Amino acid sequence: MNQEKEPKEQGEKKERKFFRPRKKPTFIKKGKLRIVAIGGLNEVGKNCMAFEYGNEIVVVDAGMQFPEEEMLGIDFVIPDMSFLEQNKDKIKALVITHAHLDHIGAIPHFLKKFPQVPVIATKLTIGMVQKHIEDAGIKNAILRSIDPDKDKLKIGQNFDLSFFRVNHSIPDGMGIYLKTPSAKVVHTGDFKFDFRPADGVRMDMGRLAEISSQGVDILFADSTNAGKKGYCKSEYVIAQTLEEIVEKTKGRLIIASFSSLIGRIQQIANFAHKNDRKIFVSGRSMIQNIELASNLGYFKSPRGTIRKLSGNAHNDLPSHKVLILTTGSQGESMSALTRISLGEHKQIHIQKGDTVVFSSSPIPGNERATTNVVNNLFRLGAHVITNDAMDVHTSGHAYQEDLKLMQSILKPKYTVPIHGEFYMRMAHKEMLVNDYGLQENQVAIIENGSILEFEKGHLRKSKEKVPSDLIMIDGIGEGDTGARVLRDRQVMSENGVIIVLFKAFEKSKRLVGDPDIISRGSIYMKESKNFADGAKQEARKAFEESIKKNPKADLKKLKSDIYRKINSFIIKKLDREPMIIPVIVYV
Amino acid sequence: MNQEKEPKEQGEKKERKFFRPRKKPTFIKKGKLRIVAIGGLNEVGKNCMAFEYGNEIVVVDAGMQFPEEEMLGIDFVIPDMSFLEQNKDKIKALVITHAHLDHIGAIPHFLKKFPQVPVIATKLTIGMVQKHIEDAGIKNAILRSIDPDKDKLKIGQNFDLSFFRVNHSIPDGMGIYLKTPSAKVVHTGDFKFDFRPADGVRMDMGRLAEISSQGVDILFADSTNAGKKGYCKSEYVIAQTLEEIVEKTKGRLIIASFSSLIGRIQQIANFAHKNDRKIFVSGRSMIQNIELASNLGYFKSPRGTIRKLSGNAHNDLPSHKVLILTTGSQGESMSALTRISLGEHKQIHIQKGDTVVFSSSPIPGNERATTNVVNNLFRLGAHVITNDAMDVHTSGHAYQEDLKLMQSILKPKYTVPIHGEFYMRMAHKEMLVNDYGLQENQVAIIENGSILEFEKGHLRKSKEKVPSDLIMIDGIGEGDTGARVLRDRQVMSENGVIIVLFKAFEKSKRLVGDPDIISRGSIYMKESKNFADGAKQEARKAFEESIKKNPKADLKKLKSDIYRKINSFIIKKLDREPMIIPVIVYV
Repeated sequence: MNQEKEPKEQGEKKERKFFRPRKKPTFIKKGKLRIVAIGGLNEVGKNCMAFEYGNEIVVVDAGMQFPEEEMLGIDFVIPDMSFLEQNKDKIKALVITHAHLDHIGAIPHFLKKFPQVPVIATKLTIGMVQKHIEDAGIKNAILRSIDPDKDKLKIGQNFDLSFFRVNHSIPDGMGIYLKTPSAKVVHTGDFKFDFRPADGVRMDMGRLAEISSQGVDILFADSTNAGKKGYCKSEYVIAQTLEEIVEKTKGRLIIASFSSLIGRIQQIANFAHKNDRKIFVSGRSMIQNIELASNLGYFKSPRGTIRKLSGNAHNDLPSHKVLILTTGSQGESMSALTRISLGEHKQIHIQKGDTVVFSSSPIPGNERATTNVVNNLFRLGAHVITNDAMDVHTSGHAYQEDLKLMQSILKPKYTVPIHGEFYMRMAHKEMLVNDYGLQENQVAIIENGSILEFEKGHLRKSKEKVPSDLIMIDGIGEGDTGARVLRDRQVMSENGVIIVLFKAFEKSKRLVGDPDIISRGSIYMKESKNFADGAKQEARKAFEESIKKNPKADLKKLKSDIYRKINSFIIKKLDREPMIIPVIVYV
Repeated sequence: MNQEKEPKEQGEKKERKFFRPRKKPTFIKKGKLRIVAIGGLNEVGKNCMAFEYGNEIVVVDAGMQFPEEEMLGIDFVIPDMSFLEQNKDKIKALVITHAHLDHIGAIPHFLKKFPQVPVIATKLTIGMVQKHIEDAGIKNAILRSIDPDKDKLKIGQNFDLSFFRVNHSIPDGMGIYLKTPSAKVVHTGDFKFDFRPADGVRMDMGRLAEISSQGVDILFADSTNAGKKGYCKSEYVIAQTLEEIVEKTKGRLIIASFSSLIGRIQQIANFAHKNDRKIFVSGRSMIQNIELASNLGYFKSPRGTIRKLSGNAHNDLPSHKVLILTTGSQGESMSALTRISLGEHKQIHIQKGDTVVFSSSPIPGNERATTNVVNNLFRLGAHVITNDAMDVHTSGHAYQEDLKLMQSILKPKYTVPIHGEFYMRMAHKEMLVNDYGLQENQVAIIENGSILEFEKGHLRKSKEKVPSDLIMIDGIGEGDTGARVLRDRQVMSENGVIIVLFKAFEKSKRLVGDPDIISRGSIYMKESKNFADGAKQEARKAFEESIKKNPKADLKKLKSDIYRKINSFIIKKLDREPMIIPVIVYV
């Protein structure tokens, strides 16, 4: 299907054996499209995929991921860009499907490495990217805004790109139709079918049919909700519930949602206007996104409805005239809603009769934090409505029936589940094989670092892998937090640190006084005099024995000897393994 | 309704003002039942409630709670027993509703304080309590096994107790009907209505009706699922699905579940037997519970079905004859299933064609860990079935319709939602008021530490509160982990520790050489020579300035001065606040 003619290459098999992980890939002959999964395949986050043909590369998305629980102190994670760095000069474009952080969050890091690469996206996405990279101190980026309904781009010698609008939980999302001389590929980005979306812009089914008629060799499709049966609920269902809530609520109304859900925010604004409620917006990202979307024409504030949250303005109105729109639906510790729930917000104080709506659902991992906020709001006297009780939120990702619809419109030769953890992509595959009727070999499960090769109409997985480490960012900069640092944090987080301080004569190696024990996060020394006395004696013994056994040992050897001995004493006494740091000072 | 006659007391109002938090409660006059919520009101966990009448107290349950994410290094949390300690001599009995850890986990701590108090429960519960307290090194406890269908107990002078069987996710659970001269109370324990439970023992509706006809002043009812609409699914639905899976699966079958779900395990054993599969059990608690339940007659192993998992026995059988039953459905790090999913289990290695069933759902907070195990099992080639895909698990807690049913049978005058976080108890109240039609003042929302008083037919909340701190256990012993220790751990978990070591002459306070910087979990000194050099200079400056400003300052003052100065330098350089420990050694 849609196979391109191409000369038969000589010696290809021979060449392939030179492909080795973590080496710079050899030159790719014409005719072969290589798809390199840089990120987003083992997680919902840090999406990044490279399409390589000959000497040219087009990158789709450069997202970040929020840290897992065990990544202590880490701010976020970005994709491993080693492959791109090794092929720096080939990169022709970075195309962004939509403006969520798991698709744009690593653009600053990308542009630091590849400042010459143009970033291509729809207007709102470009606006949000611009804001994001400016915040990261990046100037002079090449940002190109396109119209997905019309624009077709020729990138480099080999790439023809066109686009299709998708529905998602942010406006102006798109999928990509990417053609090279030998392959036609669709990348859906994140999508759902919504026949009554909040912004009124439906998926362009005609455009999808047109793409289908041109042919699709490989479909890369969003797997986030591939385990969920049925269709993803329309925003219209949510709008109906929210409208009813705005109409019927008697007291103040506080609605928490995602700041990128511009369409939903627009609808809330309309309902507020209709019911003569004024909206006060709290939360930096919410304020910024509304402003940005207004400036770019994606949000239209009903006249006089949105007011500034300053001083007591919201308290000067009767309760039934007030709607507070806020961030923090995930229980983020510094967010407006969390501060409200703790009674620590400067301007907004919960009063009896308030209704708080979580127009959201917790992102996996945030369940506990969100629940704490709900508990605290109830405790302050608010009535709280979550998505469990009423339809106040819907996902932006295709469910199984949506995926089947996409599949049946595009009729791809191969499908590659992307965006999602392994189990989600497996659910995607199982659904396609068991319920939709594809053959096993029509669906490719790949992981971060995998390379797919499409040549002569066939897709195969390369044995080669590119680096796909987790690049953890923790404030100081990129890649400075190694496994060792995380392991140390883990130990200290559970059991604290105990410093054992020895003062000794340099020559005779005789101790001056008792060793000192300093503890943090482990036990209170004051309350544990027995333990401290025992530990001091043990430390002295350890020091003296080590010196006796090996009087010439250097400081490092001596410390590690002492460490071992004290460690086993402490484990026995405390049933715990704190971080033990022996410090020896010679006088 | 069911009001008891009693003499009018004089001077009562006057007496009440002496009730103050954290003081020893004054003598309680005849006629007043006080209910003290010791634990289980702000969490799903550490359930404990005291019923006090005159000079006598009956305690119901003594459970533990698993730590929250921010309780770094904490093993578990137990209820604050200060109130009980202050009233030690009044305690006549500890009645246990069922053998889950959130109801029995704190019994060892309870019995260490009150060894003379008899523990009263059904046969299986007593068996499990015995095992639990033996593991904790407690001997000579007074354990009394009762038959909830027949036994009626007179406890002390004032308490008449009888019981009713409930359905729950462990066999032999019961609710309590507690009568004092002035009040009749029902405590449901954890319950659901299951008209086809796994162990075949239904709720005794006749017994409930009988209790109802005797009258119920206050109903304390399980709120865990009070936010969920409809009925809680019967175990029979799960049994049907599991039977189908056992029948139809072609390869090896691995089923992970809770070790206390004895009824479900029995059914799985029966299905295995019917389909000629042998069961190999992995996981200590699963093996122990099956053994205990067998010994007490709550589990009947079909002849020859359960085999020992030793050596390669399970590999000697064809795949379709093997069923492995295991713990670890919550992704617990040391559990059998987690080790299997990481390829680290000594005997069980996933092979292509294996099916793993999670006959469970993640307990809130365990979502991430469970998902990781699922991902890893898929990655090893297993097919994984979770409760999202098929009905392989049901809850043990009443849904809204179950709660209404209980309500309408017992017709209590007052209802107190217990067992559950605040939002769950609020959902319970809202359901009872809005859907069931109770008056607001018929439902009492209380918190840990609250005291309810029932007198002359009326329930009221006391202004008094008893201590209800979180007592955190972290291996070393009880109560040794204070807020300070946790805060220190939090800091170190995110940003590590930096020790700044000064060597100085004692008299002149002149530094000997440069200060030393030792770092763990923060940055690699080797890689950050610039930072270390800068920090050393800054530390020297801080030391010298402090000495100059205040030459007579003592060591403590000097350290805190230095700390402040270095801290601001480090925050500026690293954009991070590690734990900084200045150490000064005089020579």
